[in-house]
Amino acid sequence: MKYFSTLLVLLFSFQVSAQSDAENLKSIYSNALTNGKSYEWLRHLSNNIGSRLSGSFGAEQAVAYTKLELEKLGLDKEWLQPVMVPKWVRGLPEFAYIETLPGQTTHVNICALGGSVETPKGGVRAQLVEVKGIEELKALGKDKVKGKIVFFNRPMQAHLIDTFEAYGGCADQRYSGAYEAGKLGAVGVIVRSLNLRLDDFPHTGSMTYGDLPVSQRIPSAAISTNDAELLSTMLSLDSSINFFFKQNCKQLEDVQSYNVIGEIKGSEFPDEYIVVGGHLDSWDLGDGSHDDGAGVVQSMDVLRLLKESGIKPKRSIRVVLFMNEENGLRGGKKYAEVAKSKGENHIFALESDSGGFTPRGFSFDCNDAVFNMVLGWKDLFKPYLIHYFEQGGSGADIGPLKSDSIVLAGLRPDSQRYFDYHHAASDTFDAVNKRELELGAATMASLVYLFDTYGTSAETPNGTPKN
Amino acid sequence: MKYFSTLLVLLFSFQVSAQSDAENLKSIYSNALTNGKSYEWLRHLSNNIGSRLSGSFGAEQAVAYTKLELEKLGLDKEWLQPVMVPKWVRGLPEFAYIETLPGQTTHVNICALGGSVETPKGGVRAQLVEVKGIEELKALGKDKVKGKIVFFNRPMQAHLIDTFEAYGGCADQRYSGAYEAGKLGAVGVIVRSLNLRLDDFPHTGSMTYGDLPVSQRIPSAAISTNDAELLSTMLSLDSSINFFFKQNCKQLEDVQSYNVIGEIKGSEFPDEYIVVGGHLDSWDLGDGSHDDGAGVVQSMDVLRLLKESGIKPKRSIRVVLFMNEENGLRGGKKYAEVAKSKGENHIFALESDSGGFTPRGFSFDCNDAVFNMVLGWKDLFKPYLIHYFEQGGSGADIGPLKSDSIVLAGLRPDSQRYFDYHHAASDTFDAVNKRELELGAATMASLVYLFDTYGTSAETPNGTPKN
Repeated sequence: MKYFSTLLVLLFSFQVSAQSDAENLKSIYSNALTNGKSYEWLRHLSNNIGSRLSGSFGAEQAVAYTKLELEKLGLDKEWLQPVMVPKWVRGLPEFAYIETLPGQTTHVNICALGGSVETPKGGVRAQLVEVKGIEELKALGKDKVKGKIVFFNRPMQAHLIDTFEAYGGCADQRYSGAYEAGKLGAVGVIVRSLNLRLDDFPHTGSMTYGDLPVSQRIPSAAISTNDAELLSTMLSLDSSINFFFKQNCKQLEDVQSYNVIGEIKGSEFPDEYIVVGGHLDSWDLGDGSHDDGAGVVQSMDVLRLLKESGIKPKRSIRVVLFMNEENGLRGGKKYAEVAKSKGENHIFALESDSGGFTPRGFSFDCNDAVFNMVLGWKDLFKPYLIHYFEQGGSGADIGPLKSDSIVLAGLRPDSQRYFDYHHAASDTFDAVNKRELELGAATMASLVYLFDTYGTSAETPNGTPKN
Repeated sequence: MKYFSTLLVLLFSFQVSAQSDAENLKSIYSNALTNGKSYEWLRHLSNNIGSRLSGSFGAEQAVAYTKLELEKLGLDKEWLQPVMVPKWVRGLPEFAYIETLPGQTTHVNICALGGSVETPKGGVRAQLVEVKGIEELKALGKDKVKGKIVFFNRPMQAHLIDTFEAYGGCADQRYSGAYEAGKLGAVGVIVRSLNLRLDDFPHTGSMTYGDLPVSQRIPSAAISTNDAELLSTMLSLDSSINFFFKQNCKQLEDVQSYNVIGEIKGSEFPDEYIVVGGHLDSWDLGDGSHDDGAGVVQSMDVLRLLKESGIKPKRSIRVVLFMNEENGLRGGKKYAEVAKSKGENHIFALESDSGGFTPRGFSFDCNDAVFNMVLGWKDLFKPYLIHYFEQGGSGADIGPLKSDSIVLAGLRPDSQRYFDYHHAASDTFDAVNKRELELGAATMASLVYLFDTYGTSAETPNGTPKN
């Protein structure tokens, strides 16, 4: 009889706990969709502040604005974490044309890559050599490259379902193109924009000169996909045509900036930290609504959603708005450095930096035991059409926190439209759908809630709740 | 030994068949994403033809265009199936304002509901009664409704994840509002647009007068969500304000139109038919890109994708572009009527009429045995992030085919953005993403391929392939 009542009590507790998870998720999702703050925050960040390149006035305003908004949420603490960041400026609008015959020119759309040097005052004018990638460039060798502008024209692979995989297969041209072409004596680099769509927007992004001496650092720019197609066609008709481009971007001295942090103190395990974040900086074209205004406002909303749903976290939950993900990752590195120096025990970190599209799930950087625990949560997410739970990467900003004891995760939204906007003037507020953004915030808050409730020790008996 | 070799042979056949399914799906998806035709067809349908309301010149052009394009695919047969359709015309642009004091007016955005009568030449001007639905209207009774304009203002429920569920919870105001209000002596009906977003687009849609005598048929129009909010606020401040609206839409005589049909003859079971389709007509606002230009071009591409992937269907596969889904369903009814009269054995029909967004899966109207067979195909779809397989509704146009022996299914794309565009001027080509559209076509082609391969008899031993 005693045994039987124990069983009953156990069953009853299990029932309560299980209902409570499903009910908490329901409350989080309902609040996000009917009372979410993320969209209004993003409207301000995008339309009133605009682009937020590290070291820019926009970035400074964004720090002040998000700090102020976090203060309004009634968290336990908000603060700015100082970090020195690189400051690169685009200068005057870039200008480029294809010259088929002397004086016969066709204008094309380009933008300097982030970190590129400027062209000489009068611009660069040279013949082109078109390649599909770095290996092909190396095979050509110095003789065929010296004095030329190298045109990297490997398109993103459209047949890949995950557009980030297609991006990963092409990003080396943009990042290392100028380094490799500079070593071979090229005078400039033009890279096909990393965009699956054919349109007129050039897409910027980070690049490196590695250990090249200043004399070998050549200007590099992205060209829109439409104009890359045009240029390639014209080259196939006449390989001797000239290309001209002019840009006066500059790398300046590092400047002071900040990560913006808010915290709810944990009620049971205040010394165990959970981080949720996105990056506050953006490229200077467009207003960075998807990259990563979305991740910023979603992360802020996670803490608000937990509070509004009456959830009192056991662990300390921090929202971290990282500065300088795009061209330095200084914010992510600084946060991890400070956390380490203070001996803070971070058990879980979640990043949203893949756009504000309908969330599909998460990728996890964790051991199999924790991953199996997570798989036990799948049914809780089913009503919200969250189905993607895979092991894999997480996010750039939280990467420096990596250790044996932390679980890292990245929100995985639908990726089909992301590269239409990524790093381009098309990344604007109107490209974000309110409900899609809000569903992302709710999905993140739900995962944070579950990790807060069950921790990351997969052996916990209550680590496998049922819906 | 003999037993062992039989086992080996069995294992080997199973392996071959299984690989072949996965490879065929891969080929279908790759072709759709790198060589798809759906987007270019949609560009023409949307930008060169435009809206396609039944009986309009646009609808006529769309019939001719899609027939011509099907002819180019090298199918076994293409034909037009005659069907008489209703012809309703909007006439001059509608005009409406809120009058707070005599002569003090605020313009608002409305559009006549499809099938509505016109207002008197001088418009309708009356006080309003705001209700949240038909029950509330009935409770008010004749005394409070007679001579008034009834303002139905029940918003779609934002907390519901499936926006079609939110739509279903509100569509009765639009469809039956004028019928119910007319019975109570109202002089007009204004309905909040069925849109989850706050914006300035009025959304049209079908409505009925049921058995009301002509004298009781009152004009009804949709008002944009922004203006519904405005009107409701103004009414809460002063319930005596007047509303004015004017529209001169008309129902004309039925006219001749067509379903457009193409067919690949089955190699093994030519008398078993599989149908894939969408509806060719659209409302007259916007250009009907999502509703249902997307479904039309995806369905056309299904047959092309099967051919291009070297798949020779065992059953006869038909693409049917139905006319008049929006305001009569005459095309769907006609197709079923003809199929029945000819004794054609339809085993499976799939409709796409939920927008050209990223596909998430399908809903099935079928028995449990077939549904279990379908669940066995889930792993084949996993690489394409297709995860939603549920029993439920299918599609309006294929509904009339329903019998005990047919399996009906509807493509289920991501639903978050659909009602931003549905039946409004915002439903235009630029709202469709190429990859999302193409993924839908590939997903449909894959399901058609599987039903063609395995049939709908769940007892078939090879009905449960593995990836």
